[in-house]
Amino acid sequence: MHAISFIQDLAVIMLVAGVVTVLFHRFKQPVVLGYIVAGFIIGPHTPPFGLIHDGETIKTLAELGVIFLMFCLGLEFSLRKLFKVGATAFIAAFLEIVLMIWIGYEIGRWFDWNTMDSLFLGAILAISSTTIIVKALNDLKMKNERFAQLIFGVLIVEDILGIGIIALLSSIAVSGTVSSGEVFSTVGKLSLFMIVALVVGILLVPRLLAYVAKFESNEMLLITVLGLCFGFCLLVVKLEYSMVLGAFLIGAIMAESRQLLKIERLIEPVRDLFSAIFFVAIGLMLDPMILLQYAWPIAVITVAVVLGKMLSCGLGAFIAGNDGRTSLRVGMGLSQIGEFSFIIAALGMTLQVTSNFLYPVAVAVSVITTLLTPYLIRAADPLSIKLSAAMPQRLGRVFGMYGEWLRSIQPQGEGAMLASMIRRILLQVGVNLALVIAIFFAGAFFAGRLSIWMQEWISDPSWQKALIWGGALLVSLPFLIAAYRKLKALSMLLAEMGVKPEMAGRHTQRVRRVIAEVIPIISLLVIFLLLAALSASILPTNKLLVLIAVVAAVVAALLWRWFIRVHTRMQVALLETLDNHKEPSGH
Amino acid sequence: MHAISFIQDLAVIMLVAGVVTVLFHRFKQPVVLGYIVAGFIIGPHTPPFGLIHDGETIKTLAELGVIFLMFCLGLEFSLRKLFKVGATAFIAAFLEIVLMIWIGYEIGRWFDWNTMDSLFLGAILAISSTTIIVKALNDLKMKNERFAQLIFGVLIVEDILGIGIIALLSSIAVSGTVSSGEVFSTVGKLSLFMIVALVVGILLVPRLLAYVAKFESNEMLLITVLGLCFGFCLLVVKLEYSMVLGAFLIGAIMAESRQLLKIERLIEPVRDLFSAIFFVAIGLMLDPMILLQYAWPIAVITVAVVLGKMLSCGLGAFIAGNDGRTSLRVGMGLSQIGEFSFIIAALGMTLQVTSNFLYPVAVAVSVITTLLTPYLIRAADPLSIKLSAAMPQRLGRVFGMYGEWLRSIQPQGEGAMLASMIRRILLQVGVNLALVIAIFFAGAFFAGRLSIWMQEWISDPSWQKALIWGGALLVSLPFLIAAYRKLKALSMLLAEMGVKPEMAGRHTQRVRRVIAEVIPIISLLVIFLLLAALSASILPTNKLLVLIAVVAAVVAALLWRWFIRVHTRMQVALLETLDNHKEPSGH
Repeated sequence: MHAISFIQDLAVIMLVAGVVTVLFHRFKQPVVLGYIVAGFIIGPHTPPFGLIHDGETIKTLAELGVIFLMFCLGLEFSLRKLFKVGATAFIAAFLEIVLMIWIGYEIGRWFDWNTMDSLFLGAILAISSTTIIVKALNDLKMKNERFAQLIFGVLIVEDILGIGIIALLSSIAVSGTVSSGEVFSTVGKLSLFMIVALVVGILLVPRLLAYVAKFESNEMLLITVLGLCFGFCLLVVKLEYSMVLGAFLIGAIMAESRQLLKIERLIEPVRDLFSAIFFVAIGLMLDPMILLQYAWPIAVITVAVVLGKMLSCGLGAFIAGNDGRTSLRVGMGLSQIGEFSFIIAALGMTLQVTSNFLYPVAVAVSVITTLLTPYLIRAADPLSIKLSAAMPQRLGRVFGMYGEWLRSIQPQGEGAMLASMIRRILLQVGVNLALVIAIFFAGAFFAGRLSIWMQEWISDPSWQKALIWGGALLVSLPFLIAAYRKLKALSMLLAEMGVKPEMAGRHTQRVRRVIAEVIPIISLLVIFLLLAALSASILPTNKLLVLIAVVAAVVAALLWRWFIRVHTRMQVALLETLDNHKEPSGH
Repeated sequence: MHAISFIQDLAVIMLVAGVVTVLFHRFKQPVVLGYIVAGFIIGPHTPPFGLIHDGETIKTLAELGVIFLMFCLGLEFSLRKLFKVGATAFIAAFLEIVLMIWIGYEIGRWFDWNTMDSLFLGAILAISSTTIIVKALNDLKMKNERFAQLIFGVLIVEDILGIGIIALLSSIAVSGTVSSGEVFSTVGKLSLFMIVALVVGILLVPRLLAYVAKFESNEMLLITVLGLCFGFCLLVVKLEYSMVLGAFLIGAIMAESRQLLKIERLIEPVRDLFSAIFFVAIGLMLDPMILLQYAWPIAVITVAVVLGKMLSCGLGAFIAGNDGRTSLRVGMGLSQIGEFSFIIAALGMTLQVTSNFLYPVAVAVSVITTLLTPYLIRAADPLSIKLSAAMPQRLGRVFGMYGEWLRSIQPQGEGAMLASMIRRILLQVGVNLALVIAIFFAGAFFAGRLSIWMQEWISDPSWQKALIWGGALLVSLPFLIAAYRKLKALSMLLAEMGVKPEMAGRHTQRVRRVIAEVIPIISLLVIFLLLAALSASILPTNKLLVLIAVVAAVVAALLWRWFIRVHTRMQVALLETLDNHKEPSGH
């Protein structure tokens, strides 16, 4: 058969990877490092000679490896976990990412690298490695301690922010500039897309998987899962986002399926196969000459990663109200870079905006920081004792007071419940509005095609626009009505809280009622203006707009109850899927 | 990323395959058919248009699919099962394959196809489809009936004979002619290679896997298994055999590992992924124009497959002593062609010795016969009743007498035990001799390289040859001694049986002793002549041969006991592995 050179490559990769990983496992180092070293050994840059012939196919399979890695990351992600993650995780992850991007960028500029290289370096340093941390904490048997739980929370938030960074970098790399407007629009569109994809996906995908799972055929379930995964990746690519984002999102959607455990069991060998190829392919690219040439930047960046992450994550954990020891342990646990960095570095290479040296440098820093991770985690406790001993007493007291103050300002009892209610209502309003905006975007996106299709019946373009816009509004009505009702509930709550009889005296009731009526109406007006602005390309003339408004008002009034029922049913279906417990992998 | 067209292909393949297989499953048809139909739908020959862009990569992955299919077939094969399979399976499988190759060849010649096409057609028709039969018997809930067990036995024998057919076809296709000498030499070399690979493999591989399994990492076990699989395929390709053979053999070797269940669980999703691509790729190649053009041959071949297999397998089962009803059921169960046929058809295409139409014709015949299989199995019982009713009474009595006669000539009691002892000794002698021949072959194979390496110390080529030949003899000594001892035991047994006191009178003991001494020595002489002939290229001069013989005799005399101990230890290790029971997949 003609694919012999390819089989030979696979044989060499798997054999060398097998031997090296067994050795690494014996010396208690992560398997991932073994793969990279294996790739380095069989690579074209090291003696005796290059053992890989069909480099292109290996690269293609390595990209499949990225897809499966991100897909499995998505499977482990789960929205429920994100909701449960505390303030610590959000603050630490946010601080870390902002600080590390800035540090990376400054280091790049300091070495006279160009803007794009520096920016990508920042992004490469931003996100820690889930694989490495889980492995290290497992080996040290610290997985169940409090700081480990905090670290896992940070990693979850990092994943979602990392996805945002990848989307941002892609758009920046294509346009070549960084403008705050663009960043804003990219982040906005991305969030919109993610919300819509998650809502629609969670409504449809778990039901489809449950249907296929009924046939009790592992093969069919696997093929369906892979079809959905690749299909969604393709859709995401057509929308000009990265495939990585697609794989992660569809993973997060499937994480809400009852068949999660079975899917994980089926997909794991496939992921292991392709991710091994991915990591070996990374090693293949390592050129010792480049590493020697960039030894100085590698050293500087390594120190920056360790100190920067220690500081930013530790500080974040401390600001969120953890004691010094825990904060330091969180910071030192997160002091490495890993698979996300490789993906970002690969992105820069495939977009052809970064220089050739950036990838090997990132890999080298990752290898060194990975090797340091277990030592850093073990050193955290002694270091915190030494630090607290060396710290002037007054400073220590100030730190202690901060924690007390933080606890004192946290809402307690009824206040806490109220805050969580408000958060919940705002989330629901946000999701509904995201869906509405997405409907109008979809209308604008398909406007051209719809116009051609309507040509036969309606020749006037302004009437065509009116029909499309009106149609979008009609489809949006259930969500708009839901948003309006939630806003009304929120305003009543706020009015109740804000307008106390002590201030408003006998007008209390009336003021409250006015506020409760006015806020939702003003909000709705703002929403309509926003919609009009976002759907500018299909906005009909004012005259027609009034007509549409009248028709929409009549429809809304007539079908009010029906719309509410439809919406409630969807919401119940969504929440049911989210609340479902997983079946054991039996059937 | 640049692999988007490839991801798109995968997405299309998996999505369409998913939908079609779900439909096929609902209509109770095999999933495999669904894949082929899915490939047909998205293929370039059917409207609306070709949906596959990166055909080359898909083909490469499809070849991986073949490797994984054969590897899993090997995993399910297991030598123990082969030893347990009764005479029925051997006779039926042999009859079926010979008859079907002949029928296929004659049909091809009748349609004026060239010799190679006709020969490949014969091979394509020879082997039934394990996948389809298992599926059909499962669906009909007949898996545990006697005839189903017979069918599984036939399938196991077919697998091993099919491997031989593939090796033969490759060598015939390369040389372009069929000479009986070549067939003999190919079959001989192939058997030798398979015996050596199995013995060495079963000694080494399960131990290696047990070592890796101790780390309790699914990932490492998977990578090791894949490394061994691809590595062995590569070795087999370097020896100019088909990769398919390598995948099957290494699978059969791993089937003797204690980790079999775990390996199967890990490799199954990988196989499902790639075999889906393989079957879809088959569908991609289907061109409706060709199918229409060859509708007549397809119909003839389909009828030939159904009737030919019914007759040959049924007859084989009957000759081996089964009743008419069971024989008919065996024959009708095996009446289809499947994955092996695709592999043989693909072999012809990649070797570029068959015409383009052969593959689609084979696929069409496979699809039709697959669809017929469940109906044929169900029709077997009514048909056998009708047949026995329609058969003249005298003929029925003749058939009944054949069965009785067969049972009467089967060795019973002591005779049966003796026969099984002799079989066992011959098997052991055969395996030892195969190893010895393989050692000399290896010596001849590496002679050139060894000569260069010895150049510095010994310049005389005849001395170099003597050293290589002598070295091979030295390494062979334990196996030769073992063979000699087994032969001696056998001759004593034969002398005891053959020379009865009634015939030889008072000379009995002496005659027996002479026979017991003479047979092994004559056998050894024959073996040495055979070895000398086979290793002609490294055979030293007669003078040196005498020297080697003397040295070998001295070494053998001195180390006799040690050699026996070494050999026994190896034999015990081998038998232990073969007798080991599988661990449940836990750890």
